[in-house]
Amino acid sequence: MSKQLEFWFDLGSPAAYLAWKRLPKFLARTGAGVAYKPMLLGGVFKAQGNASPVTIPAKGKWLFGDLARYARRDGVPLGYPPGFPINTLTLMRAAIGLQLRRPERFLPYVGAMFDAIFGQARDLRDEKVVAEVLSKAGFDPAEISALAADPEVKQALIRNTEEAVARGVFGAPTFFVGDQMFWGQDRMDFVAEALAA
Amino acid sequence: MSKQLEFWFDLGSPAAYLAWKRLPKFLARTGAGVAYKPMLLGGVFKAQGNASPVTIPAKGKWLFGDLARYARRDGVPLGYPPGFPINTLTLMRAAIGLQLRRPERFLPYVGAMFDAIFGQARDLRDEKVVAEVLSKAGFDPAEISALAADPEVKQALIRNTEEAVARGVFGAPTFFVGDQMFWGQDRMDFVAEALAA
Repeated sequence: MSKQLEFWFDLGSPAAYLAWKRLPKFLARTGAGVAYKPMLLGGVFKAQGNASPVTIPAKGKWLFGDLARYARRDGVPLGYPPGFPINTLTLMRAAIGLQLRRPERFLPYVGAMFDAIFGQARDLRDEKVVAEVLSKAGFDPAEISALAADPEVKQALIRNTEEAVARGVFGAPTFFVGDQMFWGQDRMDFVAEALAA
Repeated sequence: MSKQLEFWFDLGSPAAYLAWKRLPKFLARTGAGVAYKPMLLGGVFKAQGNASPVTIPAKGKWLFGDLARYARRDGVPLGYPPGFPINTLTLMRAAIGLQLRRPERFLPYVGAMFDAIFGQARDLRDEKVVAEVLSKAGFDPAEISALAADPEVKQALIRNTEEAVARGVFGAPTFFVGDQMFWGQDRMDFVAEALAA
């Protein structure tokens, strides 16, 4: 029986981006399978009484330096798009929409979006930029827009977010190994230990 | 020229306790010198608009499990005293008072208090328990009380706390290597890298 991991994320989280970039090697090393779980981090924050750490100025300032150290250690580019933290509602609806309707295109979408937001610090508030990023990654922007506007897709994102909250998620990324929950790209060593146990 | 580290702490922080327990080996391994900096974490939280993570129930719940994992990994006992998070004002005044007036007794006091609070989960809201813990560690409880009530000592704790805030401290433990700040017992690997740089 192979071990299974859940990866709960929002495209607006730089820590989730760093974890995402590490996942391929991590999965190869641990031999674990993974279930990708899109959620709306803003909804999670609201339900749990939490907030982005950047709302506390001293913590936000430190956190940018902290994430930069992890990015350097991992050899991953890390920047921040204008207006960070960004509203990811449409982006996350499209993510879960692809996962439901075109699952083979889900991971390429998530990768392209994470790279655009935190690898290249693109301004995804600008629809032209979104269209350009999508086209370059082989997506039809109109199709993605339609998907994000689909009521069933919207409901699916709400359901995932509610499940996250019910299971105690309060930030991103969050990993589950069975009932054990781990928050943060900086806890992947404990995730690996849980997978090995 | 030997490298120097600052360790900012409050006796009420379980993460600071875990860092404290690691410090002897850490200092031996890195060859660094250390300046111990008592501060009042409640004052830091207030000034920075931060709060104990346990004020967010889902985060608090996770954090207890997270700290337990670190304690297990380090082979260190970790419990929580009744009423946690506790008011550490008098405890921290006594700490900085000893540092100023009887510096050779500062580290034994900090060690005895951290062990009482998080090693043995003693209820230091009870003055009899405090007196017992102090006596057992070779302190005169009346002398410690007088020290904690000394206006100069009170001012010294305010000064340290203000310095912490001015330098961007928002939680405990916080390490400085020169101007570089690191928050958390889980960032000591980055502290070691900064000391080696």
